[in-house]
Amino acid sequence: MKYGLVGASGRLGSEVKEVFIEAKHSLVYSVDITGEKSEGKPEIIIDCSLPEALPKTIELVNKFDVPLVIATTGLSENNLSELKKLSQKVPIVQSYNYSIGIQILLQLTKAAKEKLPGWDVEISETHHRFKKDKPSGTAKMIQNIFNGKDINTTSLRLGNVSGDHTVSFGGLGEVLSISHRALSRRTFAEGILLSAEFALKKKNGFYSFTDVVFGKE
Amino acid sequence: MKYGLVGASGRLGSEVKEVFIEAKHSLVYSVDITGEKSEGKPEIIIDCSLPEALPKTIELVNKFDVPLVIATTGLSENNLSELKKLSQKVPIVQSYNYSIGIQILLQLTKAAKEKLPGWDVEISETHHRFKKDKPSGTAKMIQNIFNGKDINTTSLRLGNVSGDHTVSFGGLGEVLSISHRALSRRTFAEGILLSAEFALKKKNGFYSFTDVVFGKE
Amino acid sequence: MKYGLVGASGRLGSEVKEVFIEAKHSLVYSVDITGEKSEGKPEIIIDCSLPEALPKTIELVNKFDVPLVIATTGLSENNLSELKKLSQKVPIVQSYNYSIGIQILLQLTKAAKEKLPGWDVEISETHHRFKKDKPSGTAKMIQNIFNGKDINTTSLRLGNVSGDHTVSFGGLGEVLSISHRALSRRTFAEGILLSAEFALKKKNGFYSFTDVVFGKE
Amino acid sequence: MKYGLVGASGRLGSEVKEVFIEAKHSLVYSVDITGEKSEGKPEIIIDCSLPEALPKTIELVNKFDVPLVIATTGLSENNLSELKKLSQKVPIVQSYNYSIGIQILLQLTKAAKEKLPGWDVEISETHHRFKKDKPSGTAKMIQNIFNGKDINTTSLRLGNVSGDHTVSFGGLGEVLSISHRALSRRTFAEGILLSAEFALKKKNGFYSFTDVVFGKE
Repeated sequence: MKYGLVGASGRLGSEVKEVFIEAKHSLVYSVDITGEKSEGKPEIIIDCSLPEALPKTIELVNKFDVPLVIATTGLSENNLSELKKLSQKVPIVQSYNYSIGIQILLQLTKAAKEKLPGWDVEISETHHRFKKDKPSGTAKMIQNIFNGKDINTTSLRLGNVSGDHTVSFGGLGEVLSISHRALSRRTFAEGILLSAEFALKKKNGFYSFTDVVFGKE
Repeated sequence: MKYGLVGASGRLGSEVKEVFIEAKHSLVYSVDITGEKSEGKPEIIIDCSLPEALPKTIELVNKFDVPLVIATTGLSENNLSELKKLSQKVPIVQSYNYSIGIQILLQLTKAAKEKLPGWDVEISETHHRFKKDKPSGTAKMIQNIFNGKDINTTSLRLGNVSGDHTVSFGGLGEVLSISHRALSRRTFAEGILLSAEFALKKKNGFYSFTDVVFGKE
Repeated sequence: MKYGLVGASGRLGSEVKEVFIEAKHSLVYSVDITGEKSEGKPEIIIDCSLPEALPKTIELVNKFDVPLVIATTGLSENNLSELKKLSQKVPIVQSYNYSIGIQILLQLTKAAKEKLPGWDVEISETHHRFKKDKPSGTAKMIQNIFNGKDINTTSLRLGNVSGDHTVSFGGLGEVLSISHRALSRRTFAEGILLSAEFALKKKNGFYSFTDVVFGKE
Repeated sequence: MKYGLVGASGRLGSEVKEVFIEAKHSLVYSVDITGEKSEGKPEIIIDCSLPEALPKTIELVNKFDVPLVIATTGLSENNLSELKKLSQKVPIVQSYNYSIGIQILLQLTKAAKEKLPGWDVEISETHHRFKKDKPSGTAKMIQNIFNGKDINTTSLRLGNVSGDHTVSFGGLGEVLSISHRALSRRTFAEGILLSAEFALKKKNGFYSFTDVVFGKE
């Protein structure tokens, strides 16, 4: 596929370029803080940038009329509304985390929550010192499972950690925890590739990475 | 209820006595390495002892013709066969672990296993330095989920740890773990009480603690 | 020894009574929310209460003119000043944590800090849901090692956890962590007994549990 | 510097090439399972291979009469003797782990061991599924601190984990742990570069990475 990349020089953008090259896909359009580079019309837009870049991303999707896979974290409610509106026109995959293991963690957390009413819940995440948002988008995805309830969430920033997440359930005599650790950012880039292939086959609509992994018509 | 206790002076036996007293149940028969003490006919036998005591336990269940709740770990295939035979006559609850959190861990592990084919699996357990069997009975319960497959299982013995268990799934870019930690042995004694109440209401049959927690007719 | 106990019915107070009884010491004075009980003159006062009880504790120490071992957490700067003033008259042992392992954790943290300048530092603590102060007094003791620097500290509250503390150092390619886990509150009661024996042999002065474990004239 | 590399196409060898290129060093000789490539005389030999390649490495060091930095794990007593003999002629840096954090872990473990006599000790390590030796060379370095004593050591193999090591000390009421986690193999390549620069300035002798980090004349 020919793809366009917003946030091409960032940490995740660099991994995406590597994984997509290995899969023989061509970067025909890129934009980041160093400027814009265009060598053709992309068939899909990938956004690995910051919320500030969202207007540019929406402009590009509208201009080329192609699907979008967006991995930006720290999106506001407003940002998400804009994306949902855009998805009436094109297919959009939006997730704060593109690893398969996190999808499983979310499912297990839902199951544990049903079985352990009245237990304390704590979410904890650790990321590299360069991460700008707090708590992580993935931590917010976990919070959403406990809808409404205010779940204490702690954030650690350490060196170059790719991303750890733990949900703990505490009863009076025992603690149950579900943990995920990303070993490298490459995992996320592979999930983004999977999502791009998924989006190219879909009609307009707003999809999550859960839909990509577990299916949704 | 009036209950009999095999392994009455052991670590877990002592907790059972405490929890059962608080629930107003009477110890009318007890046996351990220091000898036998009988003050009446028990309505149920609880065994928190070692495999060596099993013949005595079976003798007692036959003699009094009452249900059995057995928490002994390190049972052999033969031991289990004997218990299953005995369960044609009386209700028996058998588990290597009587905590609710471990039941949830077993369920989550089954779910994760289905979703993560091809991932590496590792089981790890930590217990107090006095624990005689290795790996723990609970670790064996986890191994059974991966029936047939030989799962690497590591055992640590540290101080007075009540019991930690972790199952880890490893993919090429990520690791997912499910962990349980018993904060005190009291948790197990409470699960044994629950099981005793369950057994008293049942007909003959071989039950697990899963049946006690999630039901089985 | 004959001892007096402030906060006698609390979680830690109950453990202290158990450990002191086993060591053949007599509780001759106690006070807690349920009232006061006096059966003689104590040779030492133990305080396992809350900051609100400090005026009463100071009153008792002055009245009986005896040493004090204080385990109360959440003390203000003012509270500590008052105690230091009082220590001109009697020996006082003050610590937010009376376990030997935490003393070692503090020493190792100091050593690691010297060797790893420029690394990120994170402190994390987990305690039972009933703990009133946040972060824990022990976390504050760890923070003090990095004097002046503002160290991010996260607090989790889960079930009945006795007390976990972790200090993590993060470099760009690696993470080093030092962790301590109290298996039961009994550990702290044993450290308090050690401190009481220490205080009875000392002249006036303000001592830490570090002094008790590693000596100080 | 002009350097030669044994095990050039391996996992660690690839990282070494990347780090050395960035530091403007030239690979003039390489050998691995795919064959030999020579474009000049190296000033130093780096070995990131397997014990089977050791004869070739010794041959090269003798032939070119240059220093050696060796990162091979799983060396036998015999292998180490040969290297020590060779070090009478040239400077050799030998370590099973070239990360700075592991050096600190070793120091902290020594300190904790002195302070916690009678506590249980457990070593645990986790590495990627491709690692051939068990336990890891680093785990052996930790074992050596408890000279003579037989320390239980557990090994987990999970996905693509770069390398985790934990030493735990267990007392009857508490557990103290020191943990290290390598976030990527790049860390080790940087330590190897540091060691190569160190070796080029030294006379003959057998050096550890501890000597490189903390100095030794």
